[in-house]
Amino acid sequence: METVTPRPRPTISDVAVAAGVSSATVSRVLNGGHWVSEKARAAVEEAVRSTGYTANHSARSLVTGKANSFAFLLAEDTALLFSDPTFSNLLRGATQALARRSMTLVLLVAGSEPERDSARRYLASGHVDGVMLISSHQSDRLIESLTAAGVPTVVCGVPLGREADAAWVAVDEAGSAKEMVRYLRSRGHRRIALLAGPQDTSGGLFRLQGFREEMGPDFDPDLVEIGDWGLRSGVAGMSRILARGKPVDAVFAASDAMAAGAIRALRQAGLRVPDDVAVAGFDDSGLAEELDPQLTTMRQPWADLSEQMVTLLCELTSGEVPRHVTLPTTLVVRDSA
Amino acid sequence: METVTPRPRPTISDVAVAAGVSSATVSRVLNGGHWVSEKARAAVEEAVRSTGYTANHSARSLVTGKANSFAFLLAEDTALLFSDPTFSNLLRGATQALARRSMTLVLLVAGSEPERDSARRYLASGHVDGVMLISSHQSDRLIESLTAAGVPTVVCGVPLGREADAAWVAVDEAGSAKEMVRYLRSRGHRRIALLAGPQDTSGGLFRLQGFREEMGPDFDPDLVEIGDWGLRSGVAGMSRILARGKPVDAVFAASDAMAAGAIRALRQAGLRVPDDVAVAGFDDSGLAEELDPQLTTMRQPWADLSEQMVTLLCELTSGEVPRHVTLPTTLVVRDSA
Repeated sequence: METVTPRPRPTISDVAVAAGVSSATVSRVLNGGHWVSEKARAAVEEAVRSTGYTANHSARSLVTGKANSFAFLLAEDTALLFSDPTFSNLLRGATQALARRSMTLVLLVAGSEPERDSARRYLASGHVDGVMLISSHQSDRLIESLTAAGVPTVVCGVPLGREADAAWVAVDEAGSAKEMVRYLRSRGHRRIALLAGPQDTSGGLFRLQGFREEMGPDFDPDLVEIGDWGLRSGVAGMSRILARGKPVDAVFAASDAMAAGAIRALRQAGLRVPDDVAVAGFDDSGLAEELDPQLTTMRQPWADLSEQMVTLLCELTSGEVPRHVTLPTTLVVRDSA
Repeated sequence: METVTPRPRPTISDVAVAAGVSSATVSRVLNGGHWVSEKARAAVEEAVRSTGYTANHSARSLVTGKANSFAFLLAEDTALLFSDPTFSNLLRGATQALARRSMTLVLLVAGSEPERDSARRYLASGHVDGVMLISSHQSDRLIESLTAAGVPTVVCGVPLGREADAAWVAVDEAGSAKEMVRYLRSRGHRRIALLAGPQDTSGGLFRLQGFREEMGPDFDPDLVEIGDWGLRSGVAGMSRILARGKPVDAVFAASDAMAAGAIRALRQAGLRVPDDVAVAGFDDSGLAEELDPQLTTMRQPWADLSEQMVTLLCELTSGEVPRHVTLPTTLVVRDSA
C-alpha cells in the first residue's frame, strides 16, 4: 500500500525539527496524544503531513485517518463462540491474516439486540476501518445498518437477499452437498437422510438445495429434518426420522455437530455406525476427528475463508466495489461413511 | 455516571435548532459523521455542547471524547482462549458487566510480540476508554507501556512487582491454598502433593506459598512439581512425583486442567481416585464437573472478578486513583477428594 520514494524516509527527528518540538513529544502524539498540548499536537500533525512521515501505523493513522484495524463481529451469543469450533477457526484465520498486514483484529460479540446496537455505534464511530460480519441469518439487519453508516463490511456466507450488492465470501454450498451425495452413492447408499441447517442461512438453504437436486427422484422429504447446527438438534432430527420407520442407510448432516448428534441417536436406537447406517458431516472444524468413529465430512477451507474476507475488506477500504468469492470444499473420507 | 438535571433533557430537535441543521444531519453526526460536511459537523458538535445533549452514547462520546468501550486484552495465544475455560468465563462476565452499562467490549488477543505491539498502538490511540489486561506473567511489559501511554488499565491477577501502584483484581491465592490443605487434612490425608502453576504468575507463586505455609513441617519438596496450568503438564508432573517412589495420599493441583492430568497419570500407574489417592483442583471453570470422578476444587468467583475489573476501570476513567480488590474463593466438595 505504500509508494516507493526516491529520497530517504523522514524520521521522527525530521518531524520534530519541522514541528519545532522534541522527538519525545512527536512520539507521544504518534502514540495517542496523551500529555501533549493542543498546540504541540497540531504542529506535529502538520509536520507529519509536510514531511510525509509514514514509518509506523500511528503516523499512518494520522495521515490517512485509518485505525489500522478490522473488526470481527460475531452476531451470536458469547456461548456459541466457545461451543461452535466454526467461529474459533474463522477467528484464528482472521487474526493471522491481519497480523501478516500488521493490522489489529478487534472482536465484538453481540448476541442480543442491545449488544448489537452498542456494537453498531462503536463500529460506526471510526474505531475500525471495516467489519467482517459473522452471522448469516437472513433476518439480520446488521449488514444494512453498517453499510448505511458507511462502514466497509464483508459478510461470511451468502447474505440472502443481498447477494448482488454486498461483499461476501462463502463456500460452494450446493456443489459441496452434491459431492457428498455422489460419494455416499458411490459407496452403495440409496436411502440417504439429510439433517439440514436453519433455512434462513445460506449454508442451511443451499446445502438442502444441492442435496435435493442431486438426489433427484430418490429425494424423500420424510428423510429430511431441519436443525440449528448444534448437536442436540442432530439427536432430535435423527430420532424423528427413525421414528417414521422408513429404511435409512446413510445420513448427511449439514454440520459435524449435527452428525455427532445423529451418531448418538442411531446408537440409542441400537444401530451401528457405519455398519448399519453411514454418517457424514460438514465443516471439519476439529470435532470430526474427535468422534468415534472419526467422521467423513466436507472440509471448509477455514484459513482461506478468513484470508479472502480480509482481502475483500482491504479492497473495500481502498474504494473498490464490493465483490464476492466462492471457495470449494474438500471431501475428507474417514471411518463413519 | 450521569448528573440529575432539574430541566427537561434536550432532544435531537433542540440540537438541530441550535445548530441550524436538520434532525437527520444531527443524527448522522451522532452516528459517526458520515456524509456530513465539516461545517455542519462543527455546528452540531457545538450545539451538542451548548444544549447539554447527552441522551445517547454517541453524543456522550462527542462531549466527553470517550469511546464508551473497554478492551479485554488477552495477552496469550488465540488457542488458549478456546482451550482454557478460565478465559471464556472472564470474557463472559466482562461482556455482561459492560452490557449492563450500555458499553461495548472489544476483545484483542495478542500472543506474539508483533501482535502486542499492534494491540498497544490500537489501545493507545483512543479507540477504547480502558483496558482489562488478562495475562499475569511477570515478564509482561504491557502494563507499563499501557500506563505510560495514559491508558487506564486494570490487571486480572496480582501484577507481580507492581502490586502497589497498579489497579488489579485477584482472588486470595494463598488463603485459598491454605483452605484446601486444611480440607484435605480434615479428610485424613497427610502426604499431600502439589502441582503448582508457573512461578512468574501470582496464582502460581502465591498458591505454592500458601500450601507451603499451611503444610508446615509436613512440606516435602519431593512432592511438588511446577506445571504450566495445562492438562499435559499435570500428567507429566504427577508422573515425576510418583517416580520418586514416596507415599502420596492426596494431590492438590493449582488448576482443574492439571488435576485432570494428575487423575490420568494416577490411573496409568494403576491407582484409583479417590480411593488410593484423592485429587483436588482449583478454578471450577466448567471442566471440574465434566471429569470422572467429579472434581473437588476451589471455585473462583468468575462473574465477580469481571464485575470488579469493570468497576475499577470505571473509577480509573473517572480520574480516581488505582486500587486493588481481593476476592475470596469457595471450596466445592465433589467426588475426587
